[in-house]
Amino acid sequence: MAVRPKWTDFPTSNVRRYLEPGPIVLVSSAHEGRTNIMTMGWHTVMEFTPSLVGCVISSANHSHKMIRRSGQCVINLPTTKLTDVVVGVGNTTGAEIDKFAHFGLTAVAAERVSAPLIAECHAAFECRLHDDALVDKYDFFVFEVVKAHVAATPKHPETLHYTGGGVFVVSGKIISRRLMFRPGML
Amino acid sequence: MAVRPKWTDFPTSNVRRYLEPGPIVLVSSAHEGRTNIMTMGWHTVMEFTPSLVGCVISSANHSHKMIRRSGQCVINLPTTKLTDVVVGVGNTTGAEIDKFAHFGLTAVAAERVSAPLIAECHAAFECRLHDDALVDKYDFFVFEVVKAHVAATPKHPETLHYTGGGVFVVSGKIISRRLMFRPGML
Repeated sequence: MAVRPKWTDFPTSNVRRYLEPGPIVLVSSAHEGRTNIMTMGWHTVMEFTPSLVGCVISSANHSHKMIRRSGQCVINLPTTKLTDVVVGVGNTTGAEIDKFAHFGLTAVAAERVSAPLIAECHAAFECRLHDDALVDKYDFFVFEVVKAHVAATPKHPETLHYTGGGVFVVSGKIISRRLMFRPGML
Repeated sequence: MAVRPKWTDFPTSNVRRYLEPGPIVLVSSAHEGRTNIMTMGWHTVMEFTPSLVGCVISSANHSHKMIRRSGQCVINLPTTKLTDVVVGVGNTTGAEIDKFAHFGLTAVAAERVSAPLIAECHAAFECRLHDDALVDKYDFFVFEVVKAHVAATPKHPETLHYTGGGVFVVSGKIISRRLMFRPGML
């Protein structure tokens, strides 16, 4: 069982801090008394305020219908400590197993949505469906992050970034060029 | 001047290999005899075949109109060798300078689009506008990658992933879990 980070509230307008680098995330959902978790690598920040995130959630995923029908999900950010959980979640289906139980993850009640937070993750972003205009055509959901929880440490968590083929690259070293940016461009 | 990698053709259906990890990219464009380059961190893979990539290109960017009007662009993948170029491109505007000249970058003719490739990048993906349904509302463009050029080495280039605030995280270490994946899930 992984250590549970201590979360604090985080401004929803700055979730790009964690999502723009493109990490693999765990998406949790709830519908009609059941929960599920899926891995997701196809997502992008779309706006600061409202805090919008666009995500491709294939209709081949058991989570797709749960998220579409409930209009909610939580985007959870795992670190490299959870690598094997990430791989396991991505290689199983919620149609057959209870992923929280199977992978020893802790479901914590969210504040603004019914989908559960995953306590072992570095951060958790509560989302409501904002726009489903491209769901039928591309399985593309636009969510609004309505509440953000982030662990204060480590400041730069080691995240997983998927390349396909079973291979992840890991974000590690930090490069700051803050002084080279025009203030309005930060 | 950075070294120019030697590109070979790469299957467009597998550009997720380079884009799914979420790197900052340089988007080049051409319209009415002028070229431009912008940095972009808000993008996601959307489909394997056709090879679709969704991108937020703010209307505040000089490139926005050039890309919308021409219906084309090139998504170029810089590595950490180009860190200062990436920062410079993101902190200047094509309304005032010629970015290829200013940053010593080499424009190479593309095969399928009129926008130029950036020779110093590890990879370059020629794109045509596929769907503009969400452009007015979210500045969100869906492009089809119609031709992909990738350097064969290094196999895992060190890429930049932006967090905001002038800080990048760098993809470094590789983790392979290939043997833990169900074949259909790779």
